[in-house]
Formats: sequence, C-alpha cells, structure tokens
Amino acid sequence: MVEWNKRHLLDVEELTKEEIQQVLDTAKSFKEVSSRDVKKVPALRGKTVVMLFFEPSTRTRTSFELAAKRLSADTINIAVSSSSMSKGETILDTARNVEAMNVDAIVVRHGSSGVPQILANNLKSSIINAGDGCRSHPTQALLDMFTIKEKLGKLEGIKVGIVGDIMHSRVARSNVVGLTKMGVEVTVCGPSTLIPFGIEKLGAKVCYSVEEVIKRSDVLMLLRIQKERQKENYFPSIREYAMEFGVNAERLKKGKKELLIMHPGPMNRGIEISSDVADGPQSLILEQVTNGVAVRMAVLYLALGAKE
Amino acid sequence: MVEWNKRHLLDVEELTKEEIQQVLDTAKSFKEVSSRDVKKVPALRGKTVVMLFFEPSTRTRTSFELAAKRLSADTINIAVSSSSMSKGETILDTARNVEAMNVDAIVVRHGSSGVPQILANNLKSSIINAGDGCRSHPTQALLDMFTIKEKLGKLEGIKVGIVGDIMHSRVARSNVVGLTKMGVEVTVCGPSTLIPFGIEKLGAKVCYSVEEVIKRSDVLMLLRIQKERQKENYFPSIREYAMEFGVNAERLKKGKKELLIMHPGPMNRGIEISSDVADGPQSLILEQVTNGVAVRMAVLYLALGAKE
Amino acid sequence: MVEWNKRHLLDVEELTKEEIQQVLDTAKSFKEVSSRDVKKVPALRGKTVVMLFFEPSTRTRTSFELAAKRLSADTINIAVSSSSMSKGETILDTARNVEAMNVDAIVVRHGSSGVPQILANNLKSSIINAGDGCRSHPTQALLDMFTIKEKLGKLEGIKVGIVGDIMHSRVARSNVVGLTKMGVEVTVCGPSTLIPFGIEKLGAKVCYSVEEVIKRSDVLMLLRIQKERQKENYFPSIREYAMEFGVNAERLKKGKKELLIMHPGPMNRGIEISSDVADGPQSLILEQVTNGVAVRMAVLYLALGAKE
Repeated sequence: MVEWNKRHLLDVEELTKEEIQQVLDTAKSFKEVSSRDVKKVPALRGKTVVMLFFEPSTRTRTSFELAAKRLSADTINIAVSSSSMSKGETILDTARNVEAMNVDAIVVRHGSSGVPQILANNLKSSIINAGDGCRSHPTQALLDMFTIKEKLGKLEGIKVGIVGDIMHSRVARSNVVGLTKMGVEVTVCGPSTLIPFGIEKLGAKVCYSVEEVIKRSDVLMLLRIQKERQKENYFPSIREYAMEFGVNAERLKKGKKELLIMHPGPMNRGIEISSDVADGPQSLILEQVTNGVAVRMAVLYLALGAKE
Repeated sequence: MVEWNKRHLLDVEELTKEEIQQVLDTAKSFKEVSSRDVKKVPALRGKTVVMLFFEPSTRTRTSFELAAKRLSADTINIAVSSSSMSKGETILDTARNVEAMNVDAIVVRHGSSGVPQILANNLKSSIINAGDGCRSHPTQALLDMFTIKEKLGKLEGIKVGIVGDIMHSRVARSNVVGLTKMGVEVTVCGPSTLIPFGIEKLGAKVCYSVEEVIKRSDVLMLLRIQKERQKENYFPSIREYAMEFGVNAERLKKGKKELLIMHPGPMNRGIEISSDVADGPQSLILEQVTNGVAVRMAVLYLALGAKE
Repeated sequence: MVEWNKRHLLDVEELTKEEIQQVLDTAKSFKEVSSRDVKKVPALRGKTVVMLFFEPSTRTRTSFELAAKRLSADTINIAVSSSSMSKGETILDTARNVEAMNVDAIVVRHGSSGVPQILANNLKSSIINAGDGCRSHPTQALLDMFTIKEKLGKLEGIKVGIVGDIMHSRVARSNVVGLTKMGVEVTVCGPSTLIPFGIEKLGAKVCYSVEEVIKRSDVLMLLRIQKERQKENYFPSIREYAMEFGVNAERLKKGKKELLIMHPGPMNRGIEISSDVADGPQSLILEQVTNGVAVRMAVLYLALGAKE
C-alpha cells in the first residue's frame, strides 16, 4: 500500500487508480467494524470532525456522522441555512472560524460547485466534499464502486448504465469520471435535454433508449428525478418520464438475469424506479447505504492520517 | 427475572405484567446511575441509537438521547420535517436507509398512529415508540408507573384520575392500558366531547366532575390542553375549561391530603393546572422527568439485549 | 490558586480580579489540549452539558459544544425556537425540565437580558451565560482578555478602543466591565446615537472620532454593525457608517505599527472592517476563536468543580 498523501477529498478526478483502490481496500476492513457487536474503533479518538452543511441532507450527513463516531472522533453538526448566511458573513469566514477551533476535518456540502475547492485552497483542515452543486459527490462514487466491486469481484470491463437527469447530477458526473478511470464502460441515458453536451469527453457513451442500456449493462444506476425539473420543461411530464425511462420488472426482462440495480436515493417509487425493482433480488440500494458508512470511514481515516 | 425477548417497544398493550415489572426494576438500578458523579455505564458501548423524529419534541428526544448517551451508545438525531418528506421518499424507505447504516435502535415519533408498528414489521433494528399519533406513548406510561410505584410502594389497588383531553391523548391511552394491567383503578375525566366513546372497554371508569375525581384518587394526572382544540369546538373557551376542570389549591382541598399530582408536560400554567399546585409539595412533575431518563435507559438496555 | 466557589457564570461583574486571572490561567493549560493530536481530557467524563439556545448562534454553540466534548462531557443541543415557546411553557419550566434530567451545566443564550440570572436563582445546575440580550456575554469578554494578555503579556495599563454599536452590544458591555477591572483603559467609539448614556460610569472613556481612538490604542476591537439598526435610524446609511467608522489599512496608518485588531464575529467585510485589516498581520480575529474554546473549557471545568 502506498502512503496516503492527500489531506482533502474534493473530487474523484484527483485520485489515481491506485488511490481509489486503496480507499476501497480500507473501506473493506472498516465495513467489518460496522457489523461487529461493538461498532467502534479508536482510530480517530480526540480528533474533531465537523459536518458543515449549507444544503440539507439527512442521509449524507448521518452517514458521515456515523463514520466519524465509529472511528471515535468528536463530531459537530453545523447546518447553515440561507437565512444565517444573509447575516453577511462569507462562506470562507464561516469555514475559517470552524477551523480556528482546532478542527481536523470539515465535511462540506454546498449548492454551488467549487466551494470545497475554495475551502481547500484556504484552510489547513482536511476538506471532504459531501456534494457541491452539480459538480461532484466523490464519496457517493467511491461507495458505488465499492458496491459493484464487492458484488462482481472487479471493476475492469464491467458495463454500467446510468439513467436519469445526467445534466444536473453530481452523482452521475462523479461516477462517470471514477468508473471510467477504473476501466468500467459507462453509458449514460436520459431525455436528450438532460444529457450534458460533451459528456463523451469524460469517457461515457450516450444512449437515448433505456431498453438498449438495460440490454447491454451489468449494472444499472437509476437517478432521482427532481420534480422541479419538469417545471423547467426538460421533459413534458413526470408521467411521460416514467413511461419512457422508468425501470420496472417488465422492462428488466430485456436485460441479463443477474443485472444489478443501484440508486443513490432518495427514490421516487413509481417514477424512475418501480417498487418491484427497488425491493427485488437484483437491488443493491440498501447495500449502497451500508457501504457508504464504510467508505466514509476510510476517507476520514486516510485524510486525517495523510502525510503531505 | 425472566429473559427479555422483545426487540421492539411499540405499546404497553404488548407487555405482560411481569415485563412491565421488569422494566420498572431495571429502571430503578439505572436511576442510581444518573445520580452518580460519573453518570455513565458502558452497557451499550459501540451501539448506535437513532432518534428519528417526524414530529418535533425537545423533551422526549432529549430524554432518549441522554438515556442512550449514559449507556455509552453513539447517538444520531434525525428530525424529518414535513418539507423533506415532500421530496417523495416514503417513511419506510427513510427508516430502511437509517437501518442500513447498521443502526441498533430507532426511536421513532410520528404524528400518525401505527407508524412504529409498520417499521417494526419491516425492519430488524429495535423500534422504540416515542409517541405515535393519538395512539400510544409507552415510555411515558412506564415512567408514570415507575413514579407512582416509587412514591406509594405499589401499583395494585391505587386509584388514579386522569383529567383533560382524553380523546386526543396518547399519554392517557397508554396510561389507561398500562395502569389497569398493573391493578390500578383508573378514572378518566374531562369535557364529554373529549372522552372517547368506549374508553370503558380499556378498563377505565368515566367521571365528568373533577371534584369527584379529586375526592376518590390517590394520584391525579393532568393533561395539557391544546389550545387548537378550542377552535374545533370541543369546549367553549380556554377560560371555561380552566374554571370547570383546571386544578388549583382550592380544588385540591377536597381530596386527600397526600394526593399526588402528575403532568406529562409541557404545562399550561393557569389552565389545566395552577402554579401553586404545579410547584406544591404534592407535585411529582419534575420527578417524572428524572424518572423518564431511567425508564428509557431500561427500555433501550432491554430491547438491545433481547434474545428472540 | 484560590478555591473556585462560583457554580454559575452570569456576568464578568460578579468575578473578582483574582477570579478572572484564574479563568485565564486555567484556559492557558486547556489551550494546550486543543493543540494536541488527541484533543481530549477526561476531566468532565460522565457529566452532562446542555446548550439551551433560545437565540440561534452557530459559532458560540459550536465553541461551547467542542469545549464540553474535549473535556469528555456528554453534550445535548436544544434550540428553542420562538414557535415552540408559543406552546405556552415558561422559560423556567423548560429549564427546570432540562435540569430534572440530572444535567450538570446549562449553557444558555437568550434574546432577553436577565434570563440566565433567573435560571441561576431557581436551579441547582451550573448556569453559564452564553449571551443575554444587550447585557452580557461573559465568555466573549474572557476570551478577549485572554487573547490580549497572551499577545501583550499583561492587561494592566493596556489601552483598548471599542468601535461600533456600543449601545446594543453585550460584547462591548462585558468587555468594558471586565477590561477596566483588570486595569485596562477602555475607550468606546461610534455614532453618538449608539453610545449609551452613562457608559462612563462603567469606567469607559468616550470618543467620537475613530482616528483619535486608533492613535491612542494598543488594541482595537471592532463590532459588527447590524444592518437592521439602520432602519431604526441610528445612522444615515451603512455606507456612511463605513466611511466614518469603518477601519481599513489607510486609517490604521494613523495608529501604532503594532496596533492589534480584534472582532467578535461575524464580520461584515467592507463595513466595519476592510478585508486587508481583517486578514492582515495585526489581526487576532481567528486567534480569538481558538482561544474561545480554551476559555469555555476553563469556565465549564471551574464551574462544575465549584465548591459552594
């Protein structure tokens, strides 16, 4: 194992193939911790991890908070509402204040792309990106890779289809970048209005037929359709989206019998995914959540022990 | 002591007399922990307890959170506002997600009756009901029993009056069921519009005169009057409610000198209870709060050690 | 060192010069803890510290929460919104309930002056004032004294200027009282509408020219200008305030080269302070934040070990 030398985790782009592999290996050993009777190791005792969330997210915040607690770190939750930002303090001043309390890691989520990078440029604490704008959600991509590799034994040569609002999804973008780096063949699929121009440059194929993607994939990742997009006229109606791109048991028959189904949550049952698929034997959706804690333990552990 | 075999606590109905007794005995030993200088035992070290509150409740959440922390468990607070539910995720998916993070107990409060039961039917984590709709609030009933027994030495044969909005009160319902099971004679009292039809079937007597109930009781439980009920025309005005059912020192003179006063809080001073009664020598109101932590420690301890 | 005998910390007024000195000495040893790799000592293990905030304040709450956690105490956050107070429970009942859960310290912030005093008069828990109305913010004054003394080696004879909305600032009031007690010469400065009548009785000089104050001071404390004050016509416009009282590098040239700059945060960059000053070599602003945790550790440690 190489020595870890990255204090921050901002994007999967900045990680080498070997570093991604090291995160996945470290997560594997931490997954075992969460299955023990006493789910706790003293690795980060006396360290402070702050969840600085400018956007609400119960599931990601909880996953990071649990990861930090199972490593015995002290945790602090800071939910910055838009109202308190209107007091006039800059994001950077807020973060510098947090850091000045001798904080070891700041897990940050923000609605604007690039905020974690700005913090990393200016602070000495570890900055862990928990999702920024439409840009990046590296721990989601890492947990998705972990889940696929755990099930299929490898990533190299696997075919993954990502279906939904590719344009506005940081999950899609981070997965395209991360998976292709690991040798996965990624195909994105969705209404043409929701496929970003130039996505092929990131290494993804594009396909506008969900049946076609189902046929050729080993793993299908379905993305949450945000109802507000419909008001922006990206697609005619939720009902039409569901009819054309929603995945149900009938549609799955066109794919391999062992096709695996993933979804980063929260799900809109009956829209992008039917209940029989979500709860069916091919679904890895809850496994993803379980693995999320292990991957975040690995990320915190590596970043806080980084030599730079 | 019998071996505890209930992973969930959904209602007092499901507990036998012996099991209630065991909760009370266990709570007694934990009450001592909270009076120590170091208020902490390692019983649940490395376990994860999540407070999943779909309805805000500072006092119940705090009591459970402290109970879990004094048992050395890791705790996570999740307050689900109605706004985030409108993202479209089902309650069950939210709970399954929480469970997938290898959580040991989910303490749930919800405005709709039956939600804890639905979670218990579908999850493997311990589900602890912290109040559901107008139906059940089992830890409140258990702490009330603990408090009465601690003061009077027994429950069998004790006469308890419950005064207020019986119809909409999960506290009243759980206490009627639990207390009668332990041999207590329970009389409910309030405006006839707020006495649910058929309450006698649960074992309670009904009385429409608060003076009458005061005269015959050893313990008087006063319930919070929710001002919004008045708009629904259950009673003519808050003032009239206070005049007819409010308990003050004058009215108490009609009862036994050692009549004990209880209230689950938060109190409306001057409405269902006067300040001289709330703060008087017969009041057990703060004792109930103290006992609440001990009873919740017992419930978490037993549920998480349950053999099934 | 004298034996500490104050269970509460309500105001700097109640502290003798020796007691303030003892807080600062204790904080010094705790500052070292936060710079360690393992930032944790077992001093308050098994104690419970509740942050009871009736007014939102991320930075003060976080500072106290971290202080308590680094002393190994269990912490509970209670944010009481005005909406839940409208349920009708009194502040004192809310606090009594918290105390009844065998809580050791209640850190309280409230928009009305005097609330911490009311709680201290009625409760046995340690009450620590985290800011009440326009009256008092003792831990801010203590951390400011700590910061000045750490930099300049002493407090006696130092000249401090405080610039801004003196009238509505609990930080200004607590600092005037505390600093003058320690032999500091304090001058307050701001628009005459924002200098409270009779402030000289607390020991402060008054000066209406910021240049004059800059010239004569060793330390300059700038206060946040709250934009809502402008609507109340205390000054003509934010822009005019910035022009007349805002401190920038140009204006600083009139002062000593080693003049130190402080600000309790959050800053309005470009209003009361320019970015070159806030981020310049004379600025102690982030040092204040760091020292805040150490001072709050000292306050909790002394109060919870107090013999009375």
